[in-house]
Amino acid sequence: MAKLWEKNYRLDGLIESFTVGRDYLLDQALVPADCCASLAHGTGLLKLGILAPREFEALKQGLLTILAEHSQGRFVIRREEEDCHTAIENRLCQLAGEAGKKIHTGRSRNDQVLTALRLFGRASVIRIRQWGEALALTLIAFAETHRDLPMPGRTHLQIAMPSSVGLWAAAWAEDILDGLRHLAQVYDVFNQCPLGAAASYGVRLPLDRELTAGLLGFARPQNNVLYAINSRGRLEALVVSALDHIGLTLSCAAQDLILFSLPEFGYFELPRELCSGSSIMPQKKNPDGLELLRAKSSTLSACLSQIRSLSRALPSGYNRDFQETKEPFLKALDLAGQCLRVMDLTFARLKPCRKALEGAFTPEIFATDAALEKVLEGTSFREAYREVGLALETLTLRDPAEALKSRTALGTPGNLNLDYARGTVRELAAASAKDGEALNRAMEALTGRPVDLLAAP
Amino acid sequence: MAKLWEKNYRLDGLIESFTVGRDYLLDQALVPADCCASLAHGTGLLKLGILAPREFEALKQGLLTILAEHSQGRFVIRREEEDCHTAIENRLCQLAGEAGKKIHTGRSRNDQVLTALRLFGRASVIRIRQWGEALALTLIAFAETHRDLPMPGRTHLQIAMPSSVGLWAAAWAEDILDGLRHLAQVYDVFNQCPLGAAASYGVRLPLDRELTAGLLGFARPQNNVLYAINSRGRLEALVVSALDHIGLTLSCAAQDLILFSLPEFGYFELPRELCSGSSIMPQKKNPDGLELLRAKSSTLSACLSQIRSLSRALPSGYNRDFQETKEPFLKALDLAGQCLRVMDLTFARLKPCRKALEGAFTPEIFATDAALEKVLEGTSFREAYREVGLALETLTLRDPAEALKSRTALGTPGNLNLDYARGTVRELAAASAKDGEALNRAMEALTGRPVDLLAAP
Amino acid sequence: MAKLWEKNYRLDGLIESFTVGRDYLLDQALVPADCCASLAHGTGLLKLGILAPREFEALKQGLLTILAEHSQGRFVIRREEEDCHTAIENRLCQLAGEAGKKIHTGRSRNDQVLTALRLFGRASVIRIRQWGEALALTLIAFAETHRDLPMPGRTHLQIAMPSSVGLWAAAWAEDILDGLRHLAQVYDVFNQCPLGAAASYGVRLPLDRELTAGLLGFARPQNNVLYAINSRGRLEALVVSALDHIGLTLSCAAQDLILFSLPEFGYFELPRELCSGSSIMPQKKNPDGLELLRAKSSTLSACLSQIRSLSRALPSGYNRDFQETKEPFLKALDLAGQCLRVMDLTFARLKPCRKALEGAFTPEIFATDAALEKVLEGTSFREAYREVGLALETLTLRDPAEALKSRTALGTPGNLNLDYARGTVRELAAASAKDGEALNRAMEALTGRPVDLLAAP
Amino acid sequence: MAKLWEKNYRLDGLIESFTVGRDYLLDQALVPADCCASLAHGTGLLKLGILAPREFEALKQGLLTILAEHSQGRFVIRREEEDCHTAIENRLCQLAGEAGKKIHTGRSRNDQVLTALRLFGRASVIRIRQWGEALALTLIAFAETHRDLPMPGRTHLQIAMPSSVGLWAAAWAEDILDGLRHLAQVYDVFNQCPLGAAASYGVRLPLDRELTAGLLGFARPQNNVLYAINSRGRLEALVVSALDHIGLTLSCAAQDLILFSLPEFGYFELPRELCSGSSIMPQKKNPDGLELLRAKSSTLSACLSQIRSLSRALPSGYNRDFQETKEPFLKALDLAGQCLRVMDLTFARLKPCRKALEGAFTPEIFATDAALEKVLEGTSFREAYREVGLALETLTLRDPAEALKSRTALGTPGNLNLDYARGTVRELAAASAKDGEALNRAMEALTGRPVDLLAAP
Repeated sequence: MAKLWEKNYRLDGLIESFTVGRDYLLDQALVPADCCASLAHGTGLLKLGILAPREFEALKQGLLTILAEHSQGRFVIRREEEDCHTAIENRLCQLAGEAGKKIHTGRSRNDQVLTALRLFGRASVIRIRQWGEALALTLIAFAETHRDLPMPGRTHLQIAMPSSVGLWAAAWAEDILDGLRHLAQVYDVFNQCPLGAAASYGVRLPLDRELTAGLLGFARPQNNVLYAINSRGRLEALVVSALDHIGLTLSCAAQDLILFSLPEFGYFELPRELCSGSSIMPQKKNPDGLELLRAKSSTLSACLSQIRSLSRALPSGYNRDFQETKEPFLKALDLAGQCLRVMDLTFARLKPCRKALEGAFTPEIFATDAALEKVLEGTSFREAYREVGLALETLTLRDPAEALKSRTALGTPGNLNLDYARGTVRELAAASAKDGEALNRAMEALTGRPVDLLAAP
Repeated sequence: MAKLWEKNYRLDGLIESFTVGRDYLLDQALVPADCCASLAHGTGLLKLGILAPREFEALKQGLLTILAEHSQGRFVIRREEEDCHTAIENRLCQLAGEAGKKIHTGRSRNDQVLTALRLFGRASVIRIRQWGEALALTLIAFAETHRDLPMPGRTHLQIAMPSSVGLWAAAWAEDILDGLRHLAQVYDVFNQCPLGAAASYGVRLPLDRELTAGLLGFARPQNNVLYAINSRGRLEALVVSALDHIGLTLSCAAQDLILFSLPEFGYFELPRELCSGSSIMPQKKNPDGLELLRAKSSTLSACLSQIRSLSRALPSGYNRDFQETKEPFLKALDLAGQCLRVMDLTFARLKPCRKALEGAFTPEIFATDAALEKVLEGTSFREAYREVGLALETLTLRDPAEALKSRTALGTPGNLNLDYARGTVRELAAASAKDGEALNRAMEALTGRPVDLLAAP
Repeated sequence: MAKLWEKNYRLDGLIESFTVGRDYLLDQALVPADCCASLAHGTGLLKLGILAPREFEALKQGLLTILAEHSQGRFVIRREEEDCHTAIENRLCQLAGEAGKKIHTGRSRNDQVLTALRLFGRASVIRIRQWGEALALTLIAFAETHRDLPMPGRTHLQIAMPSSVGLWAAAWAEDILDGLRHLAQVYDVFNQCPLGAAASYGVRLPLDRELTAGLLGFARPQNNVLYAINSRGRLEALVVSALDHIGLTLSCAAQDLILFSLPEFGYFELPRELCSGSSIMPQKKNPDGLELLRAKSSTLSACLSQIRSLSRALPSGYNRDFQETKEPFLKALDLAGQCLRVMDLTFARLKPCRKALEGAFTPEIFATDAALEKVLEGTSFREAYREVGLALETLTLRDPAEALKSRTALGTPGNLNLDYARGTVRELAAASAKDGEALNRAMEALTGRPVDLLAAP
Repeated sequence: MAKLWEKNYRLDGLIESFTVGRDYLLDQALVPADCCASLAHGTGLLKLGILAPREFEALKQGLLTILAEHSQGRFVIRREEEDCHTAIENRLCQLAGEAGKKIHTGRSRNDQVLTALRLFGRASVIRIRQWGEALALTLIAFAETHRDLPMPGRTHLQIAMPSSVGLWAAAWAEDILDGLRHLAQVYDVFNQCPLGAAASYGVRLPLDRELTAGLLGFARPQNNVLYAINSRGRLEALVVSALDHIGLTLSCAAQDLILFSLPEFGYFELPRELCSGSSIMPQKKNPDGLELLRAKSSTLSACLSQIRSLSRALPSGYNRDFQETKEPFLKALDLAGQCLRVMDLTFARLKPCRKALEGAFTPEIFATDAALEKVLEGTSFREAYREVGLALETLTLRDPAEALKSRTALGTPGNLNLDYARGTVRELAAASAKDGEALNRAMEALTGRPVDLLAAP
């Protein structure tokens, strides 16, 4: 079976393997999305009369067959086919005969792969948002449970001021929630259907782009067809940037957990089933998951940087360079989801150690409190600061719990206002549920059955 | 005059110059924002009774004096003062006496610099959004004017299909508009007030954080105080990522302009007043502005990568590493604005050359049209593709204008649907105007006069 | 079969799949290197008396069996084994019984994987250097053949001064050669044997590190064992940075080729067997290989940035984060080699078009020559520049060949001094051959047969 | 005074400020280098007879005057002059009259700025190498002094095996030394003179490029003139990559120091004169210098990424994009030097705390020793590992000093082999001294007086 662009000469073997790269492997992930998008495109061709009803029906059955083969791990993309688009068209020609040769009417692989990536990306992002919401709920529950458990607050990693496990956990919750809010915003920009852009300039057929966008559950067609193709990579990069932001949050939380679960701190205990051992040291229990959370954050940043760097200064219209954006996009989606789940599991199992947390309070942690007491007695802060600083040895240990209660300003240890985070989760979860249902309903309406766009091959 | 944290020993000179770096220079940009934020904080202290009304009044006059000195280029930040915060407190102590020593009550430089960066960032982003809207309008007008002017559409930089100057210009317009839409989304995440977070954990004073957030025109306080400090750099990075996205759009448009204004293409003429010459070759007129637009896009990406990379795996609470996020943030804001204005100027002066544009149409550009005609006569597309491909020499030149008209699907050359872009500009401009007015009104209510947060020193 | 660190509890399934990641797949590439390194380590244990001669022999046969199984594609690494080190030890235990349980004496997976990566990396780098030398020779031959073929020299992509195809091709040759020289330098830094570092701190056994380093053909042991482990990722990054430099050279050459083979320039003809077609446009022949050369350069940069970013600020001693450096290192080695070969093929087939090249000379290209003639008549250059600049219309077309001949300074079109590049290739080729032989001889001496460290599984 | 390329029209003001950017400020650093390079170029013109001896003498005096003005902070580059090259030519015309108008004969700003950057870069790199050698010596001395001081060895940041302060400090020494070795290698690639490349293609004058390269102390001319210009940015990037590598080493050492000087570890004491305080917390002594060392490493990586990203896929010949490589190159040179000096100062003042170091040894740290004892008694390692792992509670505390002595393999705590590092420093210092002298001698021979190419304006 042939490439879509088969000519009367052979491509050099080295060039072929260089240009195909790992695409034929990566494309397994896109098979369900491409089948659905092909069905929507076919519906448009039916409306235009380019496909007869009988042909359309053959195509639909063919695509459903391919979907089934894929879900059973039996759909093969051969290297010489280059990508899933060719493999699907080739298989369709087997399954649906002449109709298969018509499916590519009015489209190009350029808009086809872009549409498949958008569909797959939407499903992935929705799942990531939901995993993120689960993590936020875990964090909020952790903060609630340990709301009044004292914990030394640190700046420059040095002991600084009284704080609480509640404040600490709620900080990560709000951090993740801002990341999810941003991801939902990006979803809205991403949720545009490029189908119909063809090679980059449309074709001379009155394709109903609003129809196909609607069939695929997109919010709207991406209006200008040249912009649609130009946006390849760059819209994906917005998604990856949002994931990168979340990855950074997780890297910082992981760093805290690695440090604070060291025996020297002992603030938290990581359950051993989350820790690996050493091949040489019998005693070791290492926080490998957390270390990899830290490292994967760099991988997410590298995915972003790769996509953006290769998108830079490209001339308008499709360029083959775009192909190289696929792997980092798929990888980032995969990694970000894993990272959220690992962190969720970690906090679900994490145990604070009250003794170590309280034991870490020293007199000096109350230095600012002492200065502010002088302020309340009328000294200017700058004076009070100097006086306390010159008599640090006179500071005495205080009751951490009292200190926490004395913080009453919004968002401080004595006034966490967890309802803010709870309300945000509710709002975000409603939105992700809505986006998820819109997508699922569209896929089901299109194919007549539930479709898992993220089905592993 | 002393550092805020002056102790009874001297910091090593090398460490001092290393830790201060260029901060005392960069901080000139933050003086107006820091004065306003200090006034809001002072208002909170007045409410708490920590400042007497008379003291507050002295502080307010002192801050207004500093604002005036800054706008006249007379406000100096000395290297030994480290930053604008110290310089302002020192000057306040001169101007307002004892009251000056009270202004730092309940705050830390950590929340102070963060608040100043948010205020400055908001004002900058609003201005950038407005410059972006201006560019979008220029592009839409250019697209409208040259709506029907044929232009060869290219993929892989090779001539591909019939297109138009209108489609091309409108593609950039929609691209910029999605970038601006994204920037406005990020603005919403960024628009949270960290004031009251103090060092990272709040203080034992009932600071009214909603009051001060409101005085500074923020949408809300950033709830969790530890999250507020942890978000340093990372929220700025969201802004920079949005600017980076816009920079990429501009780099691609610049590349097109550089190529298409070469004599070999001749599609566009760049006016000479936008071109520089050579020190050695008397004949040269070089598109330096466009080349730098291309290059500055890399600078924006580097700013993002710097901020994110140094934010990675930091432990929670303030870390001095954050200081290093200031320069790339300020630089990105500055560059992105310049780039938008340069591109606006370029399109405002650009002249298409109909002769070259039409002359570039060859028979082969109509190959897909020919194949689709066979399709309309009943051949399957895959057959038609092969037949045309094997008889390319039989293709004939067609009328480009006719070809454009035959594209009627949404967003194609014959149906640009510029109203979509126009509607988007209106919507975005309304939002940026609203955000700008909210900020300006707040500043004016706070200080009793208009304040230019972006005033050059 | 078990993990090396098997404990009396089970690792959580999510954590297991997260921590293993794609390692068990990637590690196929390291099997030959790990077998050889294990054999060297075993030789050391034999010398220490920890392995009896009979045990050593069993181990050696076991490792040779594994090498053979791997080369036949029959060696399997299961996900639950985590990596090739465990799979090899497990298989050794089957093949060599009790002796297999002794192979890990005095080593850790930390130094084991590092040693395997160094061995694999050395073999890869040597091959890359040789492919690079082949490309340089192709470029030099191209430059020699077209030494006097005129080509317009461009700056800012605008026509600037007379140049030649010879100068242009020789520029790429020297560029590649500096890249290869740098790669050879990095090879020297990389060529240190970490074996014996164990977990990071050595062990209480008198391992003969000079012996094992010598057996593996390394220039020397990496002296300090903690440094050896700390250098993970960062020494690989030096290699990747050198590859990234070469990738940039290729991206620029690719950009020139894409532009100059466009019909609008027509300077070069790309043979069609290096070009792909379009799925929709029957007429297209696209320079996909060159576009991907451009894009892969970004991938190489991303590999570097990923490794460096995740190495930053890690505490000393092994950290699991290091695992995440493996994929970008292996990918960069693979890509860089492919890119060099594709560029070599391209230049081997490239055809210049004299007519287009000469036709591109306009009178203005001689403006600087005209100014310098005035200089030779006594006018100051600054005056001459102004005079010519104000009378550009008086410039006349000259003979390009004459113009080239008049450039006699070193390295200019009339004096390419190709012998410099030829001498450099000879010098570099001698060094890479020497490094290759040292490695091959060592492997053969160790195992008694030739070993292909880069054998695909 | 005019731009070098002054035409009969005015450049648009926005474009002018955009294209000039901060160049006129940054260029202060390049004034000495540009004066020296101009003198070498003038010497070449004298040899060609383009400058009369009298004219040459006037130029020489003019350049010496400018050097003196610069060293006194009196040499001004105005924004409308764009850069130091124009400012110097303009001033030369004032000082040397007609001869000033001849200095630009046969050169372009393209090769001029490149030559100045190479000269400045060479002087900077030599200084950095020497600061690095000083740090290595400090580290070796620290390792020698504390050679037998026990320190828990960590992997995954968890306590792992017995180690020593000596091993730890020597690891950083060898790490820095490999970084310096690499920097010296890069210096060799960088040490090529581009002068004579002119705009990119040379000129029709028999410029003696070997003469001018020699006058400026370069190892050789960069042969192919087009390659010389093409290498702009990319050769600088090799230098920056080498600095980035060193910055990573320092970031990791800084992280160790931040952690191990925390009270929870207490292994080291940072002298207070290297620590800053807090604006709000009177008790704080923060390791700001170390935190910034960590952060500046990201800045160095961003400099590299910026230069490489903007160099990617540029067409051959000079492009204005190159200008944007200047700032990150100068910044990286400046930062890397500072970072080395700060780390040198830190280790010069650092005090280990024996009590905390020894107190951190727990029985479990000896688990591998216990397993290896079983091995020496005949158990296979894999068995011994399991047995110890299942009876960790039977491990007992041992004498750390004894444990260190029992490590006798090369580069382990009992056998640091510091002579290796000492020998490397000697070798590197000899090379940097030789490079420094070659440069200084050349400058002095050229100008008749010592020249500080790095003189601050």
